[in-house]
Amino acid sequence: MSDTEQQAEQQNLASQQTENSVNDDEGIALAQLNGVGLRLDNGSVLEDVALSYRTFGTLNDDKSNVVLVCHALTMDQHLAGTSPVSGKAGWWSHLVGPGLPIDTDRFFVICQNVIGGCAGSTGPTSQKPDGSGVYGIEFPVITIADMVRAQNLLLDHLGIPDLFCVIGGSMGGMQTLEWAAAHGDRVFSAVPIATAARHSSQNIAFHEVGRQAVLADPEFHAGAYHEHNARPRKGLAVARMAAHITYLSETALHRKFGRNLQDREAVTYGFDADFQIESYLRHQGMTFVERFDANSYLYITRAMDYFDIAADHGGSLATAFQGTKTRFCVMSFTSDWLFPTSESIDLVRALNAAGANVSFVEIETDKGHDAFLLDEPEMTSTLAGFLRAAARDRGLA
Amino acid sequence: MSDTEQQAEQQNLASQQTENSVNDDEGIALAQLNGVGLRLDNGSVLEDVALSYRTFGTLNDDKSNVVLVCHALTMDQHLAGTSPVSGKAGWWSHLVGPGLPIDTDRFFVICQNVIGGCAGSTGPTSQKPDGSGVYGIEFPVITIADMVRAQNLLLDHLGIPDLFCVIGGSMGGMQTLEWAAAHGDRVFSAVPIATAARHSSQNIAFHEVGRQAVLADPEFHAGAYHEHNARPRKGLAVARMAAHITYLSETALHRKFGRNLQDREAVTYGFDADFQIESYLRHQGMTFVERFDANSYLYITRAMDYFDIAADHGGSLATAFQGTKTRFCVMSFTSDWLFPTSESIDLVRALNAAGANVSFVEIETDKGHDAFLLDEPEMTSTLAGFLRAAARDRGLA
Repeated sequence: MSDTEQQAEQQNLASQQTENSVNDDEGIALAQLNGVGLRLDNGSVLEDVALSYRTFGTLNDDKSNVVLVCHALTMDQHLAGTSPVSGKAGWWSHLVGPGLPIDTDRFFVICQNVIGGCAGSTGPTSQKPDGSGVYGIEFPVITIADMVRAQNLLLDHLGIPDLFCVIGGSMGGMQTLEWAAAHGDRVFSAVPIATAARHSSQNIAFHEVGRQAVLADPEFHAGAYHEHNARPRKGLAVARMAAHITYLSETALHRKFGRNLQDREAVTYGFDADFQIESYLRHQGMTFVERFDANSYLYITRAMDYFDIAADHGGSLATAFQGTKTRFCVMSFTSDWLFPTSESIDLVRALNAAGANVSFVEIETDKGHDAFLLDEPEMTSTLAGFLRAAARDRGLA
Repeated sequence: MSDTEQQAEQQNLASQQTENSVNDDEGIALAQLNGVGLRLDNGSVLEDVALSYRTFGTLNDDKSNVVLVCHALTMDQHLAGTSPVSGKAGWWSHLVGPGLPIDTDRFFVICQNVIGGCAGSTGPTSQKPDGSGVYGIEFPVITIADMVRAQNLLLDHLGIPDLFCVIGGSMGGMQTLEWAAAHGDRVFSAVPIATAARHSSQNIAFHEVGRQAVLADPEFHAGAYHEHNARPRKGLAVARMAAHITYLSETALHRKFGRNLQDREAVTYGFDADFQIESYLRHQGMTFVERFDANSYLYITRAMDYFDIAADHGGSLATAFQGTKTRFCVMSFTSDWLFPTSESIDLVRALNAAGANVSFVEIETDKGHDAFLLDEPEMTSTLAGFLRAAARDRGLA
């Protein structure tokens, strides 16, 4: 396709947008922070950091309308518009746009690919500064706090003093909490969704299974698969399959798949995907490996495992938020067994003990952890209401 | 060690037994059923079946005191005494013995390694009858019903007309239900524990992850690893790790491991087993592959996936048990999320609708699915009470 044809196509696509949508390619950007070191929790400094991000809406004059959305483990900065990678709509397109809860007519929305990721920010697939090839497994182990430090660098780079709101689900919720705990003076309000202030033993266990599946793949080549022109597809697919089960609920699986057979009238007495759930999982595994880097998967799961805000504050979660001026809206889902409501209640108790302004909603749904990515009406209305009230409190038009 | 020394050692060991224990090597036996074909659900016939089993106690004169215990996925026939494979006590040693709930002073207890297994009964590691090597992946796909048909052959072989009781947890509970549904005239009483009348979508999903981990291992060699003097250790270890998480509960994991570090003061910012839960899971994976065959794992998980008693009876679970004379004692555990109480309630409702004599106990424990293998006082007393009453009803001394 020629450049002219491509422009015509893009204009054509743009004209097809509904009035609630942002433009397909709106706000795709890269900040190359040469000469700025990112100090990491492991003691090292990451040099020449690249931060790939996307913005929607317009920054107001006093730069007081910034909403930072933090993405989850396997997501990226393409939360609205169209993802140039997948060609599909962004993962929160139903929440981010003109007139939508995260209203791009009012807010300047930023979403940045986390460091350690594989969607443009510095990570294992990046070239090392010394020009000796990609990092691969030589990339330093990073933490949620490191990811948030990188987001702070991006704000500095953009000349944005602080955030009207930071929002995120799952690992995005971890970043949201880390923002409030470690950079609270830059956070007016925070919406942690389907998350926890520490990663549980069971969640570490599932991550470890996934990592071992990747490490067991001979195509992993001790993390240097790039040098061998290889990729540990099978291992990463198994990791994704195991993880994917934890994102759903037994009820949702039963309702969606039950024991239904896949394109056949009877079981085949073999190891083909007789059941729809098997076919679905295999598809999830196979498509995931085409869009995600195996080393990034190791690094980001590890960052989540290490996350424990209380441990960073003498064992007390309340201490982490003592005297916070940030107002919080915490949400959990009844059928989420990866980040169960009990974790949110622990968080809300600590926030209350810290004297924080906090509201908490447990949303009834059978869709499991993935509910935070879906069009859940109660989540949508809670988010819209909280942002409206917080905007009024901040004097935003 | 010489034979004489070994005998002396065994006598020495035997004298160390507590009064509740059975003898170390009691009742280890093999039935080689040459010329007897086992008709399978897939339409084929398995010839020259070997059934490895173990008995405890003494068969009474009218052969009315037989208790069949059915084992779970990765267990074997060594439910009491010492396992000659592991050198450890049998998996239900706390329940099977003189004066224990499954009282070997009163009952003649049989436990048979399931067909498809790898502890002596015909399975993927067995030699093919035509002498062309081991079955491997050429072994026919079997079902829970096939396993139970093989147990029926064993009763015939032993001249035992029927069972006073059939008992089992997890996959053993599936066999217990299959006995009552398909061979009810041979079953006086039945104790299905921590089980279900069909395998759920989520459980099929976890099994599929495990199988894909095995299949992804290049040492699997399309199931013919025996011919390559290889074994898919890494893949099977990952499968076991994933499965093992499902056998526990989040509460138990939190209590036992929490976020405790393994032999270190701080995280290492790497991919070593920093956390105890990681070290524990890796150990579970590594030890499992030394005692279990990968193909057996595929076949037995597949048998569980296919299990659906209602489907075999026109979609009605009540129909499967209509008019049954078997008395049932159903047990579930509050923290078991692999076979949750709701599955047992569905079963009990169907048994009630079928007019069955059924009692049901949900046992409060945070130990998850594995509770059926542990010394759970309420399970022990319920089992003892049910067997005592059933024995009285049957006129056993």
